[in-house]
Amino acid sequence: MAKFKLDEVDHQILDMLIDNTRIPFTDIAKKLLISAGTVHVRVKKMEEAGIIRGSSLTLDYKKLGYSFIAYVGVFLQNTSQTKFVLERVETIPYVTVAHITTGKFNIFCKIRAKDTMHAKEIIFMIDDIDGVYRTETMISLEESINDKKRLMHTIFNEL
Amino acid sequence: MAKFKLDEVDHQILDMLIDNTRIPFTDIAKKLLISAGTVHVRVKKMEEAGIIRGSSLTLDYKKLGYSFIAYVGVFLQNTSQTKFVLERVETIPYVTVAHITTGKFNIFCKIRAKDTMHAKEIIFMIDDIDGVYRTETMISLEESINDKKRLMHTIFNEL
Amino acid sequence: MAKFKLDEVDHQILDMLIDNTRIPFTDIAKKLLISAGTVHVRVKKMEEAGIIRGSSLTLDYKKLGYSFIAYVGVFLQNTSQTKFVLERVETIPYVTVAHITTGKFNIFCKIRAKDTMHAKEIIFMIDDIDGVYRTETMISLEESINDKKRLMHTIFNEL
Amino acid sequence: MAKFKLDEVDHQILDMLIDNTRIPFTDIAKKLLISAGTVHVRVKKMEEAGIIRGSSLTLDYKKLGYSFIAYVGVFLQNTSQTKFVLERVETIPYVTVAHITTGKFNIFCKIRAKDTMHAKEIIFMIDDIDGVYRTETMISLEESINDKKRLMHTIFNEL
Amino acid sequence: MAKFKLDEVDHQILDMLIDNTRIPFTDIAKKLLISAGTVHVRVKKMEEAGIIRGSSLTLDYKKLGYSFIAYVGVFLQNTSQTKFVLERVETIPYVTVAHITTGKFNIFCKIRAKDTMHAKEIIFMIDDIDGVYRTETMISLEESINDKKRLMHTIFNEL
Amino acid sequence: MAKFKLDEVDHQILDMLIDNTRIPFTDIAKKLLISAGTVHVRVKKMEEAGIIRGSSLTLDYKKLGYSFIAYVGVFLQNTSQTKFVLERVETIPYVTVAHITTGKFNIFCKIRAKDTMHAKEIIFMIDDIDGVYRTETMISLEESINDKKRLMHTIFNEL
Amino acid sequence: MAKFKLDEVDHQILDMLIDNTRIPFTDIAKKLLISAGTVHVRVKKMEEAGIIRGSSLTLDYKKLGYSFIAYVGVFLQNTSQTKFVLERVETIPYVTVAHITTGKFNIFCKIRAKDTMHAKEIIFMIDDIDGVYRTETMISLEESINDKKRLMHTIFNEL
Amino acid sequence: MAKFKLDEVDHQILDMLIDNTRIPFTDIAKKLLISAGTVHVRVKKMEEAGIIRGSSLTLDYKKLGYSFIAYVGVFLQNTSQTKFVLERVETIPYVTVAHITTGKFNIFCKIRAKDTMHAKEIIFMIDDIDGVYRTETMISLEESINDKKRLMHTIFNEL
Repeated sequence: MAKFKLDEVDHQILDMLIDNTRIPFTDIAKKLLISAGTVHVRVKKMEEAGIIRGSSLTLDYKKLGYSFIAYVGVFLQNTSQTKFVLERVETIPYVTVAHITTGKFNIFCKIRAKDTMHAKEIIFMIDDIDGVYRTETMISLEESINDKKRLMHTIFNEL
Repeated sequence: MAKFKLDEVDHQILDMLIDNTRIPFTDIAKKLLISAGTVHVRVKKMEEAGIIRGSSLTLDYKKLGYSFIAYVGVFLQNTSQTKFVLERVETIPYVTVAHITTGKFNIFCKIRAKDTMHAKEIIFMIDDIDGVYRTETMISLEESINDKKRLMHTIFNEL
Repeated sequence: MAKFKLDEVDHQILDMLIDNTRIPFTDIAKKLLISAGTVHVRVKKMEEAGIIRGSSLTLDYKKLGYSFIAYVGVFLQNTSQTKFVLERVETIPYVTVAHITTGKFNIFCKIRAKDTMHAKEIIFMIDDIDGVYRTETMISLEESINDKKRLMHTIFNEL
Repeated sequence: MAKFKLDEVDHQILDMLIDNTRIPFTDIAKKLLISAGTVHVRVKKMEEAGIIRGSSLTLDYKKLGYSFIAYVGVFLQNTSQTKFVLERVETIPYVTVAHITTGKFNIFCKIRAKDTMHAKEIIFMIDDIDGVYRTETMISLEESINDKKRLMHTIFNEL
Repeated sequence: MAKFKLDEVDHQILDMLIDNTRIPFTDIAKKLLISAGTVHVRVKKMEEAGIIRGSSLTLDYKKLGYSFIAYVGVFLQNTSQTKFVLERVETIPYVTVAHITTGKFNIFCKIRAKDTMHAKEIIFMIDDIDGVYRTETMISLEESINDKKRLMHTIFNEL
Repeated sequence: MAKFKLDEVDHQILDMLIDNTRIPFTDIAKKLLISAGTVHVRVKKMEEAGIIRGSSLTLDYKKLGYSFIAYVGVFLQNTSQTKFVLERVETIPYVTVAHITTGKFNIFCKIRAKDTMHAKEIIFMIDDIDGVYRTETMISLEESINDKKRLMHTIFNEL
Repeated sequence: MAKFKLDEVDHQILDMLIDNTRIPFTDIAKKLLISAGTVHVRVKKMEEAGIIRGSSLTLDYKKLGYSFIAYVGVFLQNTSQTKFVLERVETIPYVTVAHITTGKFNIFCKIRAKDTMHAKEIIFMIDDIDGVYRTETMISLEESINDKKRLMHTIFNEL
Repeated sequence: MAKFKLDEVDHQILDMLIDNTRIPFTDIAKKLLISAGTVHVRVKKMEEAGIIRGSSLTLDYKKLGYSFIAYVGVFLQNTSQTKFVLERVETIPYVTVAHITTGKFNIFCKIRAKDTMHAKEIIFMIDDIDGVYRTETMISLEESINDKKRLMHTIFNEL
């Protein structure tokens, strides 16, 4: 758990990439008064260190017909099945997040579906995995915040 | 809720951007045997239509010292305070996701913290917001899946 | 709670009306080998006794854009407010059923909405009634049975 | 899910039928200043489109000796049994409504019984269905609202 | 369920027996200005009608070393076992009351024990009955009311 | 909590009174081969020591029109109100038992009512007591055991 | 359960040992104006009577890398397995406390771990014991009080 | 959170002190073939570093009349009162452990009492603290494990 040491330049590069992952390295270089090669080297280094693991597109799921979000808590028959069940859960693309959790659930998932009917089908897929004993669903009426940029900036300001 | 119509070329462009948001448009153009200008126009169009809302960096939070994830269910004194409370919640950068939900909670948040002590501070920040009546926390022991790419590919294959 | 005495003819008339409330009295009369006047008198009598309280149209709510059904459990600040709150609830047409119940809820409602967004608005209307302390919502994924005819026939067969 | 288009005349006909399903078509015609034939054609069309699915008698169950209403939440051993269990539930006429639901229950039923003793028998019938793991019952102390007419009028006013 | 008709004299006799089951019939007779034979006949009649089912001694359990009272909720594996389990429960003399209930428990018992250790043994006896799946215990810190006389007098005043 | 010492003769007298509180002392005397005076003295002594606190009639509540039993869990706003609330509860004769309990409820009551409607009135009486914050009701479908005689015999056999 | 009689001198010795288990007997002797031999005899006697069962070191677990405390509620498949499961639980040194409890859990444990990851492993060890059906975990955000000395002094002041 | 470095000798000293806090330093010295002065210096150093925070006597609470153990979960009106309430809780010597926790409770306490009656008094003391909204109690039927020595040995073997 030893942390990779990031310096001020790394932070500034990350700060820009956080806001726009497609920003050209030459733009970053110009703003920081360093060479584009340096930007390239620094980003490469952070990728190799595993700090930058990639980037992901932010789509508007409502416009794509996926306006239904739910959280599904999963109870297992036995926790020794956790790994097995998670592998099956991963084959369902509508499950975008899954955690092993404390509290009443063994596994806690976030799903995105087209509508109530579709959500029912997805929940039934999860329910039908061997070792899944019961599920409980909590439906999102509105996704009010979904934003890691505030956190990322805070982390780099703190360092 | 009328859906923007995407054609086959749009899907193929999105499919590539999903895997790598930083892929140069010239690379996309080469693979699809179209001009880079066309790629540019298509992406612009999807951005203007609000389908592509941006992109976000995927960082390794553990390597950055943020290995603690929890879900915090919030009970309000009165739901008329929902909007007010969500605005306050948004000022806490450690809250990366927040939903208005059915079921026992009024608002359901995901937080990322450095450790138990830090999580306690964040939970107390939420608890101290006017109108928040009680919170209940469920701690993640492992984030097993956090991946929207499988969903995105599925959506474009379905369309 | 003294029960009105229904005879065999009443039962047969009810049995036919249950299946089709719009059946002409002359049709009933023909099948039962009695006069239409008798049918008329008997129905009138059952209406006056309060046994037949009316009839209601069965519409396909999905086709009318109302595909979302939920049950909303209401907690009151104090049960002395039950009557007051129920009067307010009744002004919300999307609440089609409401019961005073034992168990964890004070009042238990069934609502019909257009979609998730609309459901949220209705739930917030209930939440905003003075005296309502909290609500908990359970969403229907499918209305599998909604049929009182089986019960009605059973009642008249038993009598 | 494409909605059948209803025009102003359809709405007015429905508005009258909602209040009294037995109203003669000639009465409707007179009020709307159209021919009884038109009323007949319109109603036929709405029935064929599946918007009007029938009508049902509203009886006073208390007067018929059925004053006991309860909601029964059903937990299944496995959700793959949902369809099978619902078919069995449907053979119990005292179950007037059944939903597949999110939240803690798999199936949620409304029952009407004569009294506590009768309710116990009905609950035991449900409990004895193969695949039913447990049930939880919430008893109605008073059915305060049971009225879809307010909703129907609202729908037609909105259209 | 047809009720046995009690007259004013029966009520007065019951009112006296409620306060003291050992009161001699001659004392009752004197107070009501009727013959002891009448009292005897009336009591006999109420016993034969099953209204008076017997009498029970009220002991001070604390003084007898039984100061621990608990309510034990029993979950069955299947409600078809209810009768079987109740027969086994009845062989445990420390269970003084048992009900088949709605809500989360299948059977709900009241037990009296000497102390925590003894309560544990009794709970384990219940847990070990075939068909009992789990139990949940709620412990009494003080028995504040245990008195049916107020109810009995009320019933006879109402009649 | 020093226990009063009962000898073998006391036990035998109690054993007979448990089965029939109205048994004449001369009958007890004859069976135990002692004088009626001795029986009288012994019973007096046990009454003065507070071991025998009285006796109560066992009525058939169903035959008296009271067939509805429920357990009502009471939540207080503050436990300092416990004594005050219990005094108010005691004025409701339909509450036959009340305990201060551990677990989720502050006070736990048993009520006997005529029917659902009557039960609602009693629950509302409890709900309306100052300091009562909420109640939860669990309804008995059948009182399967209500018998302290088995316990009493066990206690005296153990001593 | 007959209590060993402690006199004033015993209390004073215990009072000193409670504050410092390593205090030399000669120091105790001096303060109480008795001989060291007497102190030795008294302590020996209390050890033989089982009142003093030993002493334990108070370490700072955070400084030793064990900053994570959680309470784990264990549900058993059957309470007859309680003893068996507790023996297995005892082989896990990270479980420092375990109780057989009333309420929803069969066994309730306190665990100390290095961090979230380690806690997950320990919880999985408990989950994997034969007869354990499910566990629920509650995480400590801060151990605010862990001190039996206040209790011990109170006990000896009371005696 | 930088850990103090302990060497092999420190571990061996701790291992002995864990088993018997009263072991003379000369005995430790003899076993480890080092001087008593070294033992003294090492222990002093570990005390100053805060690793050894003291020692506590292990008494048999049952023999001292304290056989009743319970866990009390505390709900606060507002978490901003946490510190204030904990200070009040600390004045109750019967509360030996208190944690700020995640999950349903704000504060979670362990109490030791003489019996049910005494437990009720302690719970009422907690309930009466300003800012405490409600408590829920879980009673221990048996303290099966209470032993940190297994953990301590494991920690030093791991280091």
